[in-house]
Amino acid sequence: MLNFDYQNPTRILFGQGQIAALAPLVPQGARVLMLYGGGSIRANGVYGEVMASLQGHAVLEFGGIEPNPTYETLCKAIELVRSERIDYLLAVGGGSVIDGTKFIAAAALLDEDPWSIFEKRAANVTAALPFGVVLTLPATGSEMNSGAVVTRRATQEKRAFASRHVFPQFAVLDPTTTYSLPARQVGNGVVDAFAHVMEQYLTYPVNAKVQDRFAEGLLLTLVEEGPRALSEPDNYEVRANLMWTATLALNGLIGAGVPQDWATHMIGHELTALHNLDHAQTLAVVLPAMLRVRREAKRAKLLQYAARVWNLVEGDEEVRIDDAIARTEAFFRAMGLATRLSGYGLGREHIEPVLHALEAHRMTKLGEDRLVTLDVSRKVLELAL
Amino acid sequence: MLNFDYQNPTRILFGQGQIAALAPLVPQGARVLMLYGGGSIRANGVYGEVMASLQGHAVLEFGGIEPNPTYETLCKAIELVRSERIDYLLAVGGGSVIDGTKFIAAAALLDEDPWSIFEKRAANVTAALPFGVVLTLPATGSEMNSGAVVTRRATQEKRAFASRHVFPQFAVLDPTTTYSLPARQVGNGVVDAFAHVMEQYLTYPVNAKVQDRFAEGLLLTLVEEGPRALSEPDNYEVRANLMWTATLALNGLIGAGVPQDWATHMIGHELTALHNLDHAQTLAVVLPAMLRVRREAKRAKLLQYAARVWNLVEGDEEVRIDDAIARTEAFFRAMGLATRLSGYGLGREHIEPVLHALEAHRMTKLGEDRLVTLDVSRKVLELAL
Repeated sequence: MLNFDYQNPTRILFGQGQIAALAPLVPQGARVLMLYGGGSIRANGVYGEVMASLQGHAVLEFGGIEPNPTYETLCKAIELVRSERIDYLLAVGGGSVIDGTKFIAAAALLDEDPWSIFEKRAANVTAALPFGVVLTLPATGSEMNSGAVVTRRATQEKRAFASRHVFPQFAVLDPTTTYSLPARQVGNGVVDAFAHVMEQYLTYPVNAKVQDRFAEGLLLTLVEEGPRALSEPDNYEVRANLMWTATLALNGLIGAGVPQDWATHMIGHELTALHNLDHAQTLAVVLPAMLRVRREAKRAKLLQYAARVWNLVEGDEEVRIDDAIARTEAFFRAMGLATRLSGYGLGREHIEPVLHALEAHRMTKLGEDRLVTLDVSRKVLELAL
Repeated sequence: MLNFDYQNPTRILFGQGQIAALAPLVPQGARVLMLYGGGSIRANGVYGEVMASLQGHAVLEFGGIEPNPTYETLCKAIELVRSERIDYLLAVGGGSVIDGTKFIAAAALLDEDPWSIFEKRAANVTAALPFGVVLTLPATGSEMNSGAVVTRRATQEKRAFASRHVFPQFAVLDPTTTYSLPARQVGNGVVDAFAHVMEQYLTYPVNAKVQDRFAEGLLLTLVEEGPRALSEPDNYEVRANLMWTATLALNGLIGAGVPQDWATHMIGHELTALHNLDHAQTLAVVLPAMLRVRREAKRAKLLQYAARVWNLVEGDEEVRIDDAIARTEAFFRAMGLATRLSGYGLGREHIEPVLHALEAHRMTKLGEDRLVTLDVSRKVLELAL
């Protein structure tokens, strides 16, 4: 096991009806800005539940935060926070709304250009507005971590930052809010959570037994419950298991004390920035190809993954690895995602621009061993055609 | 899955050498009281490491906190805290030192009799002195939770309290500090952690898949690594896995959203209070008997436990359950603990006093279903003879 420094102060209120328990967690007298996305929370009743719970608080709202939240939109929210002297934020939505809220929370207290947060790797983030979350889309884990990703439309850049100042103070996870999600978002969420676990698990062994067992437990649950969320959208237990799994997939716990990869995510971010693919779609494309190209570096963990997640324990090792990767890809397809670039209308001519973007963002030594050079990334993308 | 409210703010610094990273976590200018037990930290070098790390801080010390820390001893520490205007505590040791420190932290700010914390179920604990932990004995999980158990020698009572105000601010977990532990403490620690998981896992199913997979992962790790800690005491990886497992066994995570039992612990506390058995010894005695007596209420989970922890998946269900419980008991014995009352010199005549104590402490409806009455507890103790 590697040394680690782990802390996660976010409070989780989990279960049906918990939105009603939200009010005491927002400070009395706070000027609250409620942030949300495209308005689905009005259709499914969450907007009304949150507003009812916040009665007695001064609440302004800011809607329209996009999937892959844009810097351009978030800067408008920052202006509103300042002009209205907002001192508490409440993100109601999925990872994009939460990520956007984290950026707003940090940038609103900053005396310089908000984009500097990315340029300075958040070294200039020394405080942030406090905020809470009402989660409506299990996927990114942002509701219980300190990271965020923002897209700058003007320059086609998708950049990440992390700071201990942007842990949500609380997150309400009510599985019933996810009943009405479109199948595409359900599938995306499951694949996103699956990839998060894989980035922290499928590297090389350091004999971290608990982290491995926890990661495998999350993967097994996604494999069991993911397809059921598509076929039984109103099954509370399925939704509950998926929601808690997605949160734990990226709250720091399973990644503490183990090597981490994240090459798939970095390449995926460029595909989203350049071609507007859904985040999970990029992962479904890149991850299987990454596992195939990096087969030797990841051999021991691939065999462990084959055995403990897919029950492939007999026969030739090469066949077991092939099967495990093929099943991973089949699982992503079963969740409704295409797993090749061609499935999203992208071809060989789209590879070089991705590599240029990686180079521009200094993403030339990726992976748990820093050996995913631009050449390796090229091979991955070629295999994903 | 049941609804839940989960938060755990304790920061974990894990790994060899992390004691040296402790200083910045203790506030500058604080008047620190370092608390410890019988002095083993002087022999194994931890005392020196901690003191070196705290150079520049004002540090007083209070040693001699016993296993099963006594109210009588802790009250002396409370006096010292007040007379010396201590404003930060540092517990260096195992669960007893940490539990004692939690009680001191809460009681030092209290305007009434410290014992009232137990009488009032900690409703009167509205603040506590801040404190950190340097863990030297993986067992109780106290280093990352908000509970504590204290024994009052005068009345032979062992009582527990919990309050969100007594989460450690940080805990340093350096596995090398455990190399020098006596075999008895290693065995006790592994059995204690195992019982903690079982109290949260071996109840009845609520389809909480992640909690179940995590619990099974902790149990599997204890079964694999526990005996190795006895045979290879200087194996860092073994010690690291055990240390992190014991912490996660009782930090609230695997118990969130599932029924919890704790009947074994409550009966065990009375055995310790009356006969001074080690805490883990009482668990090794009571747990196997509890599983046998409560076989029908726990049937579904016993079969799951048999399959996923002991790989007992074929043949008659009754035999599988018998085998799983027998293997549990054999595992405790392999860790060096007797699993019957007779192994500690106790006989049938010692049962009634335990039942009287349970009644006096209102422990007459224990277990995940409140069906462990005094009659059931009697059966458990008789079966444990």
